[in-house]
Amino acid sequence: MKGNLIVGQSGGPTAAINATLSGVIRGAKKAKADGYIEKIYGMRNGIEGFLEDRLIDLDSAFADIKDLSLLEATPSAALGSCRKKLPAPVLGDATYEKIFELFKKYDIRYFFYIGGNDSMDTVAKLSVYAKLVNYEIRAIGVPKTIDNDLAATDHTPGFGSAAKFIATTISEILCDTAVYQIPAVTIVEIMGRDAGWLTTAAALPSLNGAGVDYIYLPEAPFSVDSFIEDVKKALARHPNVVIAVSEGIRDKDGNYISASGKKDNFGHVQLTGAGKALEGIVKEKIGCKVRSIEISLLQRCASHIASLTDITESVQTGESAVRFALRGSTGTMICIKRYETENYEVYFEALDVLSIANAVKSVPEEYMNEEKNGVTQACIDYLAPLVLGELPVTYKNGIPEHFTFD
Amino acid sequence: MKGNLIVGQSGGPTAAINATLSGVIRGAKKAKADGYIEKIYGMRNGIEGFLEDRLIDLDSAFADIKDLSLLEATPSAALGSCRKKLPAPVLGDATYEKIFELFKKYDIRYFFYIGGNDSMDTVAKLSVYAKLVNYEIRAIGVPKTIDNDLAATDHTPGFGSAAKFIATTISEILCDTAVYQIPAVTIVEIMGRDAGWLTTAAALPSLNGAGVDYIYLPEAPFSVDSFIEDVKKALARHPNVVIAVSEGIRDKDGNYISASGKKDNFGHVQLTGAGKALEGIVKEKIGCKVRSIEISLLQRCASHIASLTDITESVQTGESAVRFALRGSTGTMICIKRYETENYEVYFEALDVLSIANAVKSVPEEYMNEEKNGVTQACIDYLAPLVLGELPVTYKNGIPEHFTFD
Repeated sequence: MKGNLIVGQSGGPTAAINATLSGVIRGAKKAKADGYIEKIYGMRNGIEGFLEDRLIDLDSAFADIKDLSLLEATPSAALGSCRKKLPAPVLGDATYEKIFELFKKYDIRYFFYIGGNDSMDTVAKLSVYAKLVNYEIRAIGVPKTIDNDLAATDHTPGFGSAAKFIATTISEILCDTAVYQIPAVTIVEIMGRDAGWLTTAAALPSLNGAGVDYIYLPEAPFSVDSFIEDVKKALARHPNVVIAVSEGIRDKDGNYISASGKKDNFGHVQLTGAGKALEGIVKEKIGCKVRSIEISLLQRCASHIASLTDITESVQTGESAVRFALRGSTGTMICIKRYETENYEVYFEALDVLSIANAVKSVPEEYMNEEKNGVTQACIDYLAPLVLGELPVTYKNGIPEHFTFD
Repeated sequence: MKGNLIVGQSGGPTAAINATLSGVIRGAKKAKADGYIEKIYGMRNGIEGFLEDRLIDLDSAFADIKDLSLLEATPSAALGSCRKKLPAPVLGDATYEKIFELFKKYDIRYFFYIGGNDSMDTVAKLSVYAKLVNYEIRAIGVPKTIDNDLAATDHTPGFGSAAKFIATTISEILCDTAVYQIPAVTIVEIMGRDAGWLTTAAALPSLNGAGVDYIYLPEAPFSVDSFIEDVKKALARHPNVVIAVSEGIRDKDGNYISASGKKDNFGHVQLTGAGKALEGIVKEKIGCKVRSIEISLLQRCASHIASLTDITESVQTGESAVRFALRGSTGTMICIKRYETENYEVYFEALDVLSIANAVKSVPEEYMNEEKNGVTQACIDYLAPLVLGELPVTYKNGIPEHFTFD
């Protein structure tokens, strides 16, 4: 099918979402050279910017293909992002009418949306509406999320780089906290509302000899009593105890150990301070020196230590999306699949986005130890290849150089 | 003077304190080869471990000189640290008697103490006591502190690496926060109780085009009213406002904008949450989306992005200390001096530690703009060379490899 192509970025930024954008652009440039498409558009601020008719010509923005390398090493979403949730796809809905009017105006026949769960929801809805109005378009979701919580894919682009930053930071924190002889507990709070994937990365430094004492994930009910027992046991072993905890830990009744109660546009509860909450608990129940560290959004934008494996796969995911679209795929999400071989190797599939959108992939039972305060070797084996390799970084004035459209 | 050498690390860790240790060891190995000294000891956990007779033979620990490269790339204090404050040096004091008994036992004639203000205080007191008891020893303070607040030295080892991490993080946060169109304020809290040096590093990304909106230092009285006016002005210019703030900001009466009120062993007030305090103020007075990020101890241990300039100078500072001691210097601190030339170049001096200890070097008036919400070009010119270059990092399993004595 001939026509034009558009790509957008949505949801929270990662260190790899621009690499995926670069992959789509690389694939699109090839498709253009092969005569399949004519124009390569980018939407500013996702579907929100598209609705405001804010498009950018990506073909000329990256006339020099070398600029794509800089884009790939730039964190966050260069096109801008949004958190817009589309309404249910009902014939005649004003939002959809506007979107499809613009599709027609620009003759958009290839639509790529890079994002997480909520963005896959957008792709699914657009696909449904396209069928309703009989508009031929290939709409494909390109996954990204540091949370690694998308179903059907072995892992998500962006996760490996965040995991590498977390593992590195934990390793450095382990050096830092080891210096004093006074009993002290350091609690590192890691992102992950419902899925503890990012927090499992705190286990990786153990491959190099130094490990955290405990890892608590939202997948297992958190018990304050067991936690205090764990900490006491660790303090009996050595003075400096380091604990990794997911922001989303909750008790057996499902109550977050700490929650502000506010909700975001998608109805998710906004969390703060599981680490701070545990800090208070240790102070009260044990009384030793205790500190909590929130890695915060640094973990999702630390491009300066991006995983080469992650960035390479992110580019490939974008390229694959274009390839699958040209072959006729629509209403799908590109999934990374791992071969069951000894050496880590992946391939790509395009799977029905409807069956993926809004499903959450949790850390499975077999990746957690029996006490639910650590991870298993199987979990480490799963994680290890994802953080391998370092993306070359261009420094300017001693600071990583970043790409910007403006 | 013939005899043995001992080196210790004290105070809070940095990314460069092990590079300085390496420098002392490199200098000591040379001095040993030249026949000046016999044994090279390290004290575990600083003067506290020394008092417990916990020494380590550094010459054999680094029989393979290649291990020093790994030590130089390892954050924190490999020998361990302490926060012990020595009493006033009065003849017959039990602590000093114990220390000098151990000096005699091991024939320690060269004493190197790597640390910040409080560690220089230890060197000064030991020098005074050595004269009182007529014990010939060359005691030299080797500076380190990410805070850059030591007097007499152009800058301190450890500062450049922390500044590089902060500048890189700020640059990545600027990418991250730029994606949405909704007005939002991001407040980044940076370490610095009394001196705002680390916070000034937030100005460096402006060299690459992207800059923070405001920088607030503890050196200038903080006014909540002016702050709110500043934020409103920035929000009128663009939706995403990023502010760097030192943890030590205080009002015109000297009250910290946020302080827990607890004091550490040296009587310093322990601070938490200037960022959180400002977050609350913006929420209340402006009501837009607001978030605060505490870079926390990551800024002092991020060896994976250490400044090559800083690490090189840190090694040189350690080597210089041994050189000055061999020439007879004692009761001194090694200072880095900058030539007044166009190209950045430094030399080293050994200056009286008594006149340095416990003095605080603040960010000078001419480095702050008139409105006291940003820094001047002179400040950026001072900072820029200190973050240049990247220390090569050895990765193992995708995570930086670290040295450990255990």
